[in-house]
Formats: sequence, C-alpha cells, structure tokens
Amino acid sequence: MSRRHPKSYEDLLERFRRGETLAASRLMSIVERRGDEAEEILDRLFPDVGRAHRIGVTGGTGGGKSTLVNALTRIFRAAGNTVGVVAEDPTSPFSGGAILGDRIRMTHAVGDEGVFVRSVASRGSETGFSVLAGELSDVLDAFGRDVILLETTGVGQLETGIRFVADTTVVVFTPEAGDEVQSLKSGLMEIGDVFAVNKADRPHADRFAKHLRSTLEMRYGGGDWTPPVVKTAAHDETGVDALSEAVSRHRSYLSSDGRLAVRRREGLERRIRAIATEKAAGLFWGNPYIRARFDGIFEEVAAGALSPYAAARRLAGAIRIDESS
Amino acid sequence: MSRRHPKSYEDLLERFRRGETLAASRLMSIVERRGDEAEEILDRLFPDVGRAHRIGVTGGTGGGKSTLVNALTRIFRAAGNTVGVVAEDPTSPFSGGAILGDRIRMTHAVGDEGVFVRSVASRGSETGFSVLAGELSDVLDAFGRDVILLETTGVGQLETGIRFVADTTVVVFTPEAGDEVQSLKSGLMEIGDVFAVNKADRPHADRFAKHLRSTLEMRYGGGDWTPPVVKTAAHDETGVDALSEAVSRHRSYLSSDGRLAVRRREGLERRIRAIATEKAAGLFWGNPYIRARFDGIFEEVAAGALSPYAAARRLAGAIRIDESS
Repeated sequence: MSRRHPKSYEDLLERFRRGETLAASRLMSIVERRGDEAEEILDRLFPDVGRAHRIGVTGGTGGGKSTLVNALTRIFRAAGNTVGVVAEDPTSPFSGGAILGDRIRMTHAVGDEGVFVRSVASRGSETGFSVLAGELSDVLDAFGRDVILLETTGVGQLETGIRFVADTTVVVFTPEAGDEVQSLKSGLMEIGDVFAVNKADRPHADRFAKHLRSTLEMRYGGGDWTPPVVKTAAHDETGVDALSEAVSRHRSYLSSDGRLAVRRREGLERRIRAIATEKAAGLFWGNPYIRARFDGIFEEVAAGALSPYAAARRLAGAIRIDESS
Repeated sequence: MSRRHPKSYEDLLERFRRGETLAASRLMSIVERRGDEAEEILDRLFPDVGRAHRIGVTGGTGGGKSTLVNALTRIFRAAGNTVGVVAEDPTSPFSGGAILGDRIRMTHAVGDEGVFVRSVASRGSETGFSVLAGELSDVLDAFGRDVILLETTGVGQLETGIRFVADTTVVVFTPEAGDEVQSLKSGLMEIGDVFAVNKADRPHADRFAKHLRSTLEMRYGGGDWTPPVVKTAAHDETGVDALSEAVSRHRSYLSSDGRLAVRRREGLERRIRAIATEKAAGLFWGNPYIRARFDGIFEEVAAGALSPYAAARRLAGAIRIDESS
C-alpha cells in the first residue's frame, strides 16, 4: 500500500467538505485500513463529529437485520433525513477480506445521494466491528449524515460493544430465535434500548413479544425508559414505522436532561481506553528487546521448563511508565 | 473473595492428584475466577499437561452442538476413555454470571466418575471463551482425562480462537444454518478439521453436505488432510459414530510427522502472547500516573480540544521497556 503524501489529504478533505460522496468513500477506505493515515483522517474530522443519531442494529444471524435496516433507511429518508449505513460482513479471521456478494441491497436507494451504504469486514483482530463502526460513523457524521445505522452480524462478545458506539441500540429477535431462554440470556437483553420481534408473522411471535415485554417491564419498569418491544415483518414493512418511531422516541428521551452527553462520554472513554490499550500493546510487541526476549522465553515454555503465565509475567515485567511524559 | 492460604493448595493439589473429582472441580473454579490464584494453580499443573486429545466443537447457535457433544461423550466413554467437557454459557457482559439452568444434561453420565462436565460463563472481557477453555482443559488434562470436548456458543470473532486451543476442531452446521453463503463465509470454514452437517434429516441436508464437500475439496484437495464432512442427526445418534471416527482419524493424522507438536507450539505461542498482552495492559492501566493522566486527557477530548487518537498516543507514549529486565 503506497503511502499518500499529506498534500493529497487536503484535496480529499476539501472535496469531502463540499459533500462529494466519492471523497467520503475514499476516506472511509483509509479509515478501514487503520494505521497512521486512518488516525490522521480521524484526528482531522473529530471537530465536526457529534451531530448524527447513531443507531445500532444487532441480534442473532438470520433475524432479518439487513431487511430491517433497509426498511428503516427508507423511512428515515422519506422523512427528509440523509442516511448512512455501516454494515458488518462476517469475515474469515485468516483471509481478512470482505465478501460483498450478498450486500447488493437497497435497490430503492440506487442513485440517491442521500443514502450511503458501506459494508465492512469484521476483522479477526480484537478490535472488533464496533470500534471500526464507530470510526466509520465519525466519517459519515462529519459528512453531515443525519442518521447512521450500524448493523452487526451475529452475536459475539464483541458485538455487544455496539452499545457503546450507538446512541440507540435496536436488538432484533425472531420468535423462534433458538429457544427464548438462549436469546434472553445472550447479553443482548441488557444492551437494547428498543427491541424488534421480527418475522412476527411466524408462530409464537405474540407469546415471545409478550414474554419479552414482561421481562423488560420487570427489569426497567418504573425507571425513566422501559425499552419498547415492536413486532415487525420487515419483508412487507409491517411494524417498521412503529419501530422507527420508537427509535426516534428514544433519541428524544436521550436529548432531555443531558442523557445523550452522558452516554457519549461513556462511549468516548471506552474508545480512548481501547485505542490506548492497542497502542500500548503495539509499542510493547514492536519493541526489539521484547521480541528477542519472547523467542528465548518461548523455547523455555515449549521445553516444559516454564509455564505460560510465568513466561508472560517475565515479558510484561519489562514495562515501565515514564512519568515525565 | 477470601484469599486462600498457599497451604490449602497443597491439600487440594494432593487430592487432585489422587483423582478426587471435587478437588478438580475446586481447581477449575479457582482458574475460572482468574487472578493470582488461578495463575499459581496453572503454573503448578503445567508439567502434567499435554496428554489429552482436545476437541473443539463450534458452529452457529441452534445447530445442536450440545446434543452432539453429549453423543460424542457417550461414544468416547464407551470406548474406554475418560471424558471432560467444557461448555460455554452465553452470558451478559454486564452481570457476569453463568446461567446454568439449561445445562442440566447428560443424564446418561450421572454417577459416572469418568465424565466431568463444566459449564463456564463467557465473560464480556476481551479474553473470550477459548482462553479460559484452554486453561480449564489444562486442569482436566492434568487430571488425566483422555478426551476433552470444548463446546463454544455462537459464532463470534473470538470463537474461532478455539482452533488454537483444540487439537481437532469440529465445525457443526445445520442444512438451513441461515443461507449456506452466510455459513461458508463465517470464518468457520477455515478452522474446521472435521465438519458435521447436523439435523441431517432436514431438507437440503444432502445438497448442503455435497456443496460443503466440494468447497473443501477445492480448498484442501491434494493436501495431507481434507476435512471430512459427516452427516449427523444427534437426537437419534445417526452418524455420530462416523463423526467420532473422523475425529479420531484426525488425531492419528496429527500424531504422525510431528504435526501435533507443531500445532500445539502455535497454540502455546498465541497463548503466551495473549496473557502477556493482558498483563502489559493491566500494568499500564493499573499505573497511578497513567490513571491520573487519563482523567486529565479525557476531559480535553470531551471538550473537543483533543481527538481520541491523539489522547491515546499521549497516554501510550509513556511506555518504556526496561531492557535489563
């Protein structure tokens, strides 16, 4: 990958600020590659970030999240909002490439400059989709998008991190999403601001929605916000209006009493910690002394002379903090 | 949590070495809590680790992994092996507790000291299930179990890490596991040593298995090991014998030409790196200077005067490596 001259960023940023979609797309590609160039771009855009409503859409695979995101896009767009979509593509941890084949979607938005869709590979790295999604949202936010939809794939431990990137988190269940118990204990229950029971034309949808509602009522009832449960059938747009309304209501709720600011501070803190941890690890493993030391210590472990923990303690023990920094 | 006196470990370890199940269970609880006590236990057990065959079982939710693991347990047990099972429980990243309700299983093994089942909460931490599964396997391995089955939940980015903990990785698909495309690009394709198409009595099972076989043939054909595809219907044990046979065949394959040693070295290296990174991060964030500095820098970011990356660079920039360590 060739190293761009800083000069070219100026052109790109200027075109970005004039609203050129291609420039936004280029900046997102740079951000997606990560590294120094990505950082520079994000540093430059940071002052222009913070206006958009960021909506995370998460839940198990096969729940119809993509269809729901498409429908929401259409509704927000019809209401006069510009929309950005960042959609996760499941990816091999080994090859690292995104397979975009089935992402050809939103034909309704073709030719509409007000809708910007970006598919991203979820890396095998510890960084996870949410961190990258947050950064790509920054680009779309600075680009002036009113609404940003962040669509995750599957339910991993990292997926729940979307809660710290989104202002509003929509959790999508299907009536038969495995057994109810599995879903209700997956960690998704605690990150949802709004719940969608999608494919609500299937059996048990009512029963599941009712159970979900009573579970949420038990947990949050009497508080400031009890997550609403909306039944949807995204394929024919049933309930999608009610869903977008619930999402907008949550945004209004957040806006009152400075709740949005508190939530974003939380996300920001988490983000800085994540980046700093990554940088600290990079400095650590990039250090020639540590690398050489690792090789020697590893052989001791492989020979059974040292335990993995003892090895790790020795390695990490070389860390010092410069308090004059 | 009370701090145990080292003395009590000696008793516990002695009872463990005499083969007391309760002692093994206690040691696993300590390991699961992590921290200094866990490290000490793992350090002590390390010399006795390495004999067991570790089999990872992974795949999407609802694929019937638990039932398959039950059936494999029965078969390995019937062949005279002692078996240990470490099964992941999906858990809230916020509450941290394991919900064991639906883990009451393997009634066939009740009263059989040769089967040891352990359910563990998958933390919200970056550590993930595989690291913990590897450590609990060490306990079971040192306890003398012949076969250890590691059952993951769902398909996250971290789940594929099981590949570095297991000697043999079994990937379980269902014929309708979402659309085939989704499954085939989930990263699971590349970690499987053996594939099971479970619930093979459902429609399209043959077509899916055939497609899977040809995909694997394209990728691995002509190599030393082309992952076999076994059709199973775990509820009535169809194909489960063939599956256990495929798993044993993979173990034999690994044992020849020192492949097992190579694979375990790889896992060991990854493990030491992960622990050292965790320790390095712990030292970094535990440092009082860094903590104070974080508070100040965070306010600058919150005020919009500093970008998150610039903040992280400043923080991480305080790291030094002591080359005399």
